[in-house]
Amino acid sequence: QGTRDHPPAQTVLRDRLLAAVVACFKRHGAAAIDTPALELRETLTGKYGEEAKLIYELQDQGGELLALRYDLTVPFARYLAMNKITNMKRYHIAKVYRRDNPATTRGRYREFYQCDFDIAGQFDPMIPDAECLKIVHEILSDLQLGDFLIKVNDRRILNGVFAICGIPESKFITTCSTVDKLDKLPWEEVKNEMVGEKGLSPEAVDRIGEYVQLHGGLELIERLLQDPKLSQNKLAKEGLGDMKLLFEYLTLFGITGKISFDLSLARGLDYYTGLIFEAVLLQQENDHVEEPVSVGSVAGGGRYDGLVGMFDPKGRKVPCVGVSIGIERIFSILEQRVKASGEKIRTTETQVLVATPHKHLLAARLKLISELWDAGIKAEMLYKKDPKLLKQLQYCEDTGIPLAAIVGEQELTDGVVKLRDVATREEVRM
Amino acid sequence: QGTRDHPPAQTVLRDRLLAAVVACFKRHGAAAIDTPALELRETLTGKYGEEAKLIYELQDQGGELLALRYDLTVPFARYLAMNKITNMKRYHIAKVYRRDNPATTRGRYREFYQCDFDIAGQFDPMIPDAECLKIVHEILSDLQLGDFLIKVNDRRILNGVFAICGIPESKFITTCSTVDKLDKLPWEEVKNEMVGEKGLSPEAVDRIGEYVQLHGGLELIERLLQDPKLSQNKLAKEGLGDMKLLFEYLTLFGITGKISFDLSLARGLDYYTGLIFEAVLLQQENDHVEEPVSVGSVAGGGRYDGLVGMFDPKGRKVPCVGVSIGIERIFSILEQRVKASGEKIRTTETQVLVATPHKHLLAARLKLISELWDAGIKAEMLYKKDPKLLKQLQYCEDTGIPLAAIVGEQELTDGVVKLRDVATREEVRM
Repeated sequence: QGTRDHPPAQTVLRDRLLAAVVACFKRHGAAAIDTPALELRETLTGKYGEEAKLIYELQDQGGELLALRYDLTVPFARYLAMNKITNMKRYHIAKVYRRDNPATTRGRYREFYQCDFDIAGQFDPMIPDAECLKIVHEILSDLQLGDFLIKVNDRRILNGVFAICGIPESKFITTCSTVDKLDKLPWEEVKNEMVGEKGLSPEAVDRIGEYVQLHGGLELIERLLQDPKLSQNKLAKEGLGDMKLLFEYLTLFGITGKISFDLSLARGLDYYTGLIFEAVLLQQENDHVEEPVSVGSVAGGGRYDGLVGMFDPKGRKVPCVGVSIGIERIFSILEQRVKASGEKIRTTETQVLVATPHKHLLAARLKLISELWDAGIKAEMLYKKDPKLLKQLQYCEDTGIPLAAIVGEQELTDGVVKLRDVATREEVRM
Repeated sequence: QGTRDHPPAQTVLRDRLLAAVVACFKRHGAAAIDTPALELRETLTGKYGEEAKLIYELQDQGGELLALRYDLTVPFARYLAMNKITNMKRYHIAKVYRRDNPATTRGRYREFYQCDFDIAGQFDPMIPDAECLKIVHEILSDLQLGDFLIKVNDRRILNGVFAICGIPESKFITTCSTVDKLDKLPWEEVKNEMVGEKGLSPEAVDRIGEYVQLHGGLELIERLLQDPKLSQNKLAKEGLGDMKLLFEYLTLFGITGKISFDLSLARGLDYYTGLIFEAVLLQQENDHVEEPVSVGSVAGGGRYDGLVGMFDPKGRKVPCVGVSIGIERIFSILEQRVKASGEKIRTTETQVLVATPHKHLLAARLKLISELWDAGIKAEMLYKKDPKLLKQLQYCEDTGIPLAAIVGEQELTDGVVKLRDVATREEVRM
């Protein structure tokens, strides 16, 4: 349940998509690593907040207690700490596992690919952070997925908001989780959850509501920097200062048009410590709809400066910022697009079929195809001793093989091959 | 335990290796599929004989009982049956999981890549089988791993041998498992296991011993076809007839020089029904050793005509033959070779570093690098506001970046960039 086989046509399409993503990651100078799908259970413990219940655990069959990785970020942090690496730009494309309620039509699975790019190291503020947003912008533009919006926020700003609204610090993370639902639920419902389930005071929640419904650009940052209460909060002030710097850099990259500073963005995971962001595609089909509607997140990420330190025996920190591309949802969109276009995807790359026009020529076919393979030519033949020529040509048409190399008695005698263009039926002896 | 992280240099090398294998599979017209790493436990039950104890099971957290795939063959058979596919040539490269005693120095892990190529469908005998051996020959030759030998045998011949030696049919599979140890243990030890653990009669075992120590080529096949007892056994006769046909085809492929018909080859898995084979590298270092010594299996496979039927509700069979390339062991060899050669593997593909010669030029770097990325050029910059030029050039040398694009005040004024060849130190303004 919640997993799927990829038949050849899907695999070809997915490989195309991943190639585009990898090209972007390489363009930004990242190296690839690979880590096991299995991690020690204790490695994953305490990293995912309320989502921890979705971790797949392995049966205790003796030996270490294991679990399947939930994302690629925690394994990356574990890798950095284990190898004492303090500086690295890496990408990683691999499957992750979540015991979630699958919604396969919307591209939500229990086993799915993640495509992560992360920058680890102590650097000047917001330069790597800006590059992560540039990468999201490049990939979504390259794939021509239509209009999109990248929402950005900062955990320090959110925590500052919570603090000045009177939320106790012990409830920051759980309040974050609830705020994060604002992209799916109206404010009233989110408010009810905060007051009912989370036990926050209605007055505090109303004050939060005034902030988290704000979104805008540089002018909003400036306004909040002047906010009498928020500007008194050390964390919020730092966050707003960095957000301003980020917008400066994004202006130089020329991408602020697709960026929205959005105080409702919270993201579910525990480990974020600074910038957080999420990219959504905007619906365009209905021209009569006044405002573009979000059709879900296709990329997300943020800064997690504390995670590597959790794996270091001495707690040495390595600041990190990264982005994860939501390849499954993008794949669903591309797949629908290919279906709609009627494009027939070839699932093999065979260049030539080795064929014979009459019986008792299996040996000739085997000899010729062997020569072609040894010359690096992609060649197939039918696995029959005496196939009909028509069947062989039909196979070319069915599978898109452009050429047939035909050897009959006459060709064998003359020491030639008849090369046939399957589409035009033109033949040359060579 | 038994798993490993692949750092960037290993990942680059592994990607190179996999690319060579994929190129061969595509040359033979295979399409790629992908299946989940998770399978239902019942899918894996009863397919692996004594090795079943090595299957990783997932904890029962509610819902289906799951396990990690043990190989790519059983998932392929499940895929064919589920989708009612009766005809397919596919390759699949993915990780599999075995709770084995790891021997990581010899490339034996609990999580490792398999590279499988399989041909499913009802065809004329031994044509697809011969292609599988051709593929092994091509890959081991392409990778220049030194001398190798492909041992071939047939389960039907082995079963015939067991039958005429007086082994009850119920003990064929377990006898197979023990015979399979002949590549690691001397005959005396194998014999002891058969008599002691497996409870076979010493006389029967002695008779088996006479057969399973035979190996050769076409002349051995001819001799066994004349063997008064073996030629009376229906299965063995079929197997020997097909083996003769196989050698005919392999002669046309020109690869019989590396093929040995070896009656000691048995292979551990339950599901093989016909041809089985295994490729071993031959040690060459010590010229004084008389006979080349096997350094372990690097590819293996065989025919499994019954496996797909086990997943079909009506038991409909789809004959299959396939090969699995032992990529981890090959990888260990290539890695040692790279180490010995002192080749420095670049882990990134960055073409140019965007650099500045003095302070207050971060904006200029961000603008230029953004233009380069948008033009598809692989570019990096240091994530510092004011890095020293020397540090920037040092970074190029450390990571193998061939060019530095330098913008200073003068270049900004003139609207040019100074492009420096890092190795030669030559500079051009452009």
